[in-house]
Amino acid sequence: MAIILAEHANVSVDVLKVVKMLLIHDIVEIDAGDTFIYDTQKSHDNTAEERIAAERIFGLLPADQAHELLAIWEEFEERKTDEAKFARAMDRLEPLLQNVSNNGGTWREFKVGFDQVYQKKQAIQHGSESIWAYAEQLLRESVESGILKKTTV
Amino acid sequence: MAIILAEHANVSVDVLKVVKMLLIHDIVEIDAGDTFIYDTQKSHDNTAEERIAAERIFGLLPADQAHELLAIWEEFEERKTDEAKFARAMDRLEPLLQNVSNNGGTWREFKVGFDQVYQKKQAIQHGSESIWAYAEQLLRESVESGILKKTTV
Repeated sequence: MAIILAEHANVSVDVLKVVKMLLIHDIVEIDAGDTFIYDTQKSHDNTAEERIAAERIFGLLPADQAHELLAIWEEFEERKTDEAKFARAMDRLEPLLQNVSNNGGTWREFKVGFDQVYQKKQAIQHGSESIWAYAEQLLRESVESGILKKTTV
Repeated sequence: MAIILAEHANVSVDVLKVVKMLLIHDIVEIDAGDTFIYDTQKSHDNTAEERIAAERIFGLLPADQAHELLAIWEEFEERKTDEAKFARAMDRLEPLLQNVSNNGGTWREFKVGFDQVYQKKQAIQHGSESIWAYAEQLLRESVESGILKKTTV
């Protein structure tokens, strides 16, 4: 998805770096576990557990590669560079497309509403204004078609 | 795997192109179906069905991207360029690692022997001599440990 949509990024991005970010950023969940994005109890921020996981897992590689992947993981987590912003946009878009194509998917399963989803999906805009325009439209259509509630309860 | 192991390719390769090949090469199976690699009845060659599938599926994209991905798919299938050879090596290595880590996996399930596996895995050598040396060692160890039979019956 990132390779195909990279031409819609707000600025030109290093596609291979974006692909690396997307391929490796969830690997820390092997050790640190995953938190559901709409979980309101638990923090999703770059936790101490994730940092320990990143150092252990990337540390299995030869030192130069461990260093490179740890740096790419940090860059993705910090969301500051163009590549990190576009990778984040892809990471937010993909489950949106899944839920739209799957009758609401986790939105319905976990009773998440438009307000909460919209707030999380806005990160797409930092990576691509045009993809965000499309995503926003999908979210509004999802409320209209009833697969996404207007407000979270 | 391709990103991490690219430094072991016989010659320097365009890693992004290799990644593209690996991400898209199996997509034709949506239409054309998959054939088990050790199937002795059916051909695995670049079939007419696969060509039709590639044209239909990549053809869903804007023309410039359809053209690019079709060309990359063809390049992978022809196995002539450095990128195609290294991508093929990765494609052959990955199920080998799976079977080794999974008590013989499909080798045992389908009663495939060392002779047949060795013949298919030799393609790794065209992409990376050093990875092939490692793969060959794994195959010999698999026979010794009994998870891969010496000959196919």
